[in-house]
Amino acid sequence: MQWSEYNSDLPRDKDFSLAEWLSGPMMTEIAFIRKILSNMAVFVREKYAGRRELTVRSKVNPNDLVTEADLAVQRHVVDRIRAAFPNDSIVAEEEGLAEYPPDANVRSWLLDPIDGTQNFVRGQFPAFGISLAFVVGNEVAAGGVALPMTGDLFLAERGAGAFRNGVLTRVSDVSSLALARVEVDFGGPMRRANTLATTSELIRRAGAVRCQCAAAVSLCAIAAGDMDAYVHVRLNPWDYAAGQLIVEEAGGAASCPDGSPLRPFDAKKGVLVSNGRLHDELLAAIRG
Amino acid sequence: MQWSEYNSDLPRDKDFSLAEWLSGPMMTEIAFIRKILSNMAVFVREKYAGRRELTVRSKVNPNDLVTEADLAVQRHVVDRIRAAFPNDSIVAEEEGLAEYPPDANVRSWLLDPIDGTQNFVRGQFPAFGISLAFVVGNEVAAGGVALPMTGDLFLAERGAGAFRNGVLTRVSDVSSLALARVEVDFGGPMRRANTLATTSELIRRAGAVRCQCAAAVSLCAIAAGDMDAYVHVRLNPWDYAAGQLIVEEAGGAASCPDGSPLRPFDAKKGVLVSNGRLHDELLAAIRG
Repeated sequence: MQWSEYNSDLPRDKDFSLAEWLSGPMMTEIAFIRKILSNMAVFVREKYAGRRELTVRSKVNPNDLVTEADLAVQRHVVDRIRAAFPNDSIVAEEEGLAEYPPDANVRSWLLDPIDGTQNFVRGQFPAFGISLAFVVGNEVAAGGVALPMTGDLFLAERGAGAFRNGVLTRVSDVSSLALARVEVDFGGPMRRANTLATTSELIRRAGAVRCQCAAAVSLCAIAAGDMDAYVHVRLNPWDYAAGQLIVEEAGGAASCPDGSPLRPFDAKKGVLVSNGRLHDELLAAIRG
Repeated sequence: MQWSEYNSDLPRDKDFSLAEWLSGPMMTEIAFIRKILSNMAVFVREKYAGRRELTVRSKVNPNDLVTEADLAVQRHVVDRIRAAFPNDSIVAEEEGLAEYPPDANVRSWLLDPIDGTQNFVRGQFPAFGISLAFVVGNEVAAGGVALPMTGDLFLAERGAGAFRNGVLTRVSDVSSLALARVEVDFGGPMRRANTLATTSELIRRAGAVRCQCAAAVSLCAIAAGDMDAYVHVRLNPWDYAAGQLIVEEAGGAASCPDGSPLRPFDAKKGVLVSNGRLHDELLAAIRG
């Protein structure tokens, strides 16, 4: 599918016109994130309804999927970032944009056009989202996650709080692992043995264990207070960067599973995110 | 909350009048299931919206929750079963109705008023449901599962197919474990070590691993073709009976994890449910 084909079905919405993005006034990064995610959520929801007609391909392994919807969202968002912020670096999941910038300190954008593509393809409702983060100095400065099927839009700017549909959101106050709802993200088959070795003690001790395998969505669930913690042994920064800031601004904590700082362009060591109160007990239960 | 208090807010709907149930014509079991689940789905959806005001208690362990909504649904459904089928036995999750009938061959009803209560309380949307099965001769003869938040109603009668909102539904045709979406239900903390021992090989080999801990909802996902398999090391019959029949009638298979037949009132040995094609490979991967 070409984006232009899709565009031809749309009303002449200014938001979908590249000329408008180019000619409009300078936007802040968070305003850009809000606008683009709102548009893309509608598009992905439409594509979900017709997902059985979508072209689906596998990538490095047969369970790692990409659809024409992922590609269309990425192309559209990348075009608009380039129009609005022409000097910024862009890192995204699909189509050869996955390389980190040579200098981690430049202004960068991190995009996962559909986080949870397998859930999207197979119909695990509503566990997929669109994640976009703005990074400066190897630290997330602004981020947003849209959940197309619930209509939720989570947004955060560093130091300004986290919002769910415009309302401030806070993490839970659960303070004991024995009562906590913990997501262990088992990821793809290649990571499964490592995940079991790292998390088996945690799995034995947690109050409840869940796994939906859509990191951005799961981090928003922590920011909303519905879940208490999330762990993944090796995750790409476009999966977690926006969600990390949303959780931190909602009062939670994020680190690598060994307790070291979690930054987008460091070497990948996995992700541990929590409501904050649980973080030390989680670190102690994990074999890093 | 008393049911009567709730009733006072309702329009004078015939379906909510016990006198009407008593005086109406004799209903088939599947018609009864369809009617009562439709009513209860609306009630549970309303209660979800106000869940922060609900009274919540824990049962045998602090993660095993019951709310006034569970109790209200159970009382309402039990009253109507007794009115419509006064000689039948009733087995249900809450309030001292969990005992199996002395003779497994009698006509029985199996009710889980809210399957996935913790998801309901903490807001894991939409992973909770209402499950009701009719059992004769220790075999499920009719069953239904309502998902209040999606509006889905799954129904099946033995030999007559499985339906999602009135449309025939079929399991997936995934035939290799390496490509399959498998739910490992980790259950409560007491079962965690046993679950890990039983399923670690399965976890390593499955295409994708998920866990939402609402058995009835997960079995409907298999019947819908969204998931391919589900395993739990020890489950109560009100959790799986309706879903088992729905999956079997959608073309799938159900057994104990050791491959022996799965019947509601046998000694509990756990549950393995699949799209059928995967069943042998799943049995081989599980350490029973």
